Amino acid sequence: MDHVETVPLTGISNPIATRYGDASAAPPAQWNTVLDTLLAHRSVRAYLPDPVSPETLALIIAAAQSAATSSNLQVWSVVAVTDQQRKDRLSEMAGGQRHIREAPLFLVWLADLGRLAAMAEAQGVPAEALDYLEMLLVGVVDATLAAQNAVVALESLGLGSVYIGGIRNHPEQVAAELGLPSRVFPVFGLCVGTPDPQRPASVKPRLPQAAVLHHERYDAAVQPPGIAAYDERLRDFQISQNLPPEDWTSRALSRVKGPGSLSGRDRMRAALANLGFEIR
Amino acid sequence: MDHVETVPLTGISNPIATRYGDASAAPPAQWNTVLDTLLAHRSVRAYLPDPVSPETLALIIAAAQSAATSSNLQVWSVVAVTDQQRKDRLSEMAGGQRHIREAPLFLVWLADLGRLAAMAEAQGVPAEALDYLEMLLVGVVDATLAAQNAVVALESLGLGSVYIGGIRNHPEQVAAELGLPSRVFPVFGLCVGTPDPQRPASVKPRLPQAAVLHHERYDAAVQPPGIAAYDERLRDFQISQNLPPEDWTSRALSRVKGPGSLSGRDRMRAALANLGFEIR
Repeated sequence: MDHVETVPLTGISNPIATRYGDASAAPPAQWNTVLDTLLAHRSVRAYLPDPVSPETLALIIAAAQSAATSSNLQVWSVVAVTDQQRKDRLSEMAGGQRHIREAPLFLVWLADLGRLAAMAEAQGVPAEALDYLEMLLVGVVDATLAAQNAVVALESLGLGSVYIGGIRNHPEQVAAELGLPSRVFPVFGLCVGTPDPQRPASVKPRLPQAAVLHHERYDAAVQPPGIAAYDERLRDFQISQNLPPEDWTSRALSRVKGPGSLSGRDRMRAALANLGFEIR
Repeated sequence: MDHVETVPLTGISNPIATRYGDASAAPPAQWNTVLDTLLAHRSVRAYLPDPVSPETLALIIAAAQSAATSSNLQVWSVVAVTDQQRKDRLSEMAGGQRHIREAPLFLVWLADLGRLAAMAEAQGVPAEALDYLEMLLVGVVDATLAAQNAVVALESLGLGSVYIGGIRNHPEQVAAELGLPSRVFPVFGLCVGTPDPQRPASVKPRLPQAAVLHHERYDAAVQPPGIAAYDERLRDFQISQNLPPEDWTSRALSRVKGPGSLSGRDRMRAALANLGFEIR
C-alpha cells in the first residue's frame, strides 16, 4: 500500500499505557498518524454549537461507505438530523440524554433491508431471505462497520462523537419520527460536533489485552486475573475523573442483571416484528 | 483534538471519484492521512507468506480495543489463528475459501457474552439479560466496532485484510474448533497479511451517497435513480477488472432470493440456541 508512514510518538505520553490504564505497558513498536487517531478515541458528550458543514458530512459518509459490506449488499443507510425539535424528540426517546439535544448533528445508523425489499418488489422477484435472523445480523454488521469508519474520519477532522444505544429503547417511535419504511431498524445514534475544549473527555482504559485476545483457541482461564487487574485500574481512573470509584465487575453485572436492566430493550423481538423483521 | 492535520491530495487521483466510480464527483474539501487510509480500503485476498509479528498483532488489537463499546461492557473477544491445519479446517467450514488457508493470520471476532456470564456465576448473581436478543445485538455491534478499528489500523501499517462472513455457515463447528464457551458467537473472520503486489486488489465503487444518506427523514424516493446509476457504474467496474459485467441489482437480489441463498445461515436461530443464546 502506498500510504504507509512512520511517525515518532508525539509528546512524552505512551498511548498504550493510557489505553490500558497501565503505566507499566510497553510503548508501541510502530506508530503513525492513523494509529494516533484510533488510540486517542474518547466519547465526547460536550460540544460547541458550530454546525457540521455539508462538505464535512459528505466526507464522513464517503469514509463510512468505504468500509467493507457483506457481499457488497450495502444493507445500511443513515439519517442526518440537525433540526432542533427532532433532536429534542429523539433525545426523549433515548432516555433524555442531553448531548443529543446539544450536538449540532445527530446521525441515526440503520440496518436497511428495506432497500433490497423495494428493489425485489419493483422487479417482481422473491426476497424471502430478508425474513431470516442472518440478514438482520448482516444489516447490523454493515451499519456498524460504516459507522465506525465515520467515527475515525470525523475524529481525524477534529470532531468528536458518542454512540447512542438508547435509540433502541423505543425503536418503533424512532422509526415513526424518521419515516422509516418496513424492514429498516435504527441500530444506534451518533452525536457529532466540535468538542468543547472547556469540558474535555478522557481516554477510558480497557480490559488487559490478555483477557480479550486468544491464541489458536479460546482460553477462559486467562480472564479472571485480567478482570481483577482491570477492576483496580478502572477504579483508579474513576477517582482521577472525580467519578464514583466503582469497579468494572459490579457495574457491568448490574447492567445485565435481568430484563429490567435493559431500559425497555427486553422487548426487542416484538419491536423488530413491528418494524417488519420476521427473524426466522 | 491535537491530531488534526491537513495534507494535500496525493497524486492526481480523486479518491471520491474512485470510491463512487463516478469521474464527475467533486474532489474532497479537506484531506488528511487518516481519510487517505479509509477511502483507499479494498478487500485483499492475495497475500505474501510473511507472518504478522506479535508486536503488530498487539498494536492492531489495541486499536480494536480503542473503539467504543456499549456501556463499556466490552462484550467481544477475538481468537488469532496462525496454525496451518486449523486455518485449513476453518477454511472448509467457511465454504472452502482459499485465502483463509493462505493468509498468515486469521482473526475470528466473537460476540462474547460468556465472559459476563462467568463473572456472574463466580459472584453468584443473576445475569438474565444475557438471554435477550438485545444483548446478542450488543455483542455483535461491539465485535464489529472493534474489528473495523483493527482493519483501519492494519491498513495503516501496510497490511491488507478481508472479512469472512462464511464463518457463520457452520457456527457450531467453528465454536468447537476454537473451544468457545457457551454464549460466545463467531460473528465473522478476518484474513490478515501483507498484500501480494503481483495480485493487487481494487477499490470497489459504492452506491451514490444520495441513495444512502437521508436528511431529517428517510426518503425512499431518492433510491431508484441512485441504484440505476450504480448498476451502470458497477458494470463498468466489473468490465475494467475482467469480471462478468453483472449489474448490482441482479447480483444483490440473487443473494436474498430465499433461504437457500443463505449458505446454511437460514438456520442461524437454531445455531445460536446450540451456542447458548436464548434470544428472547
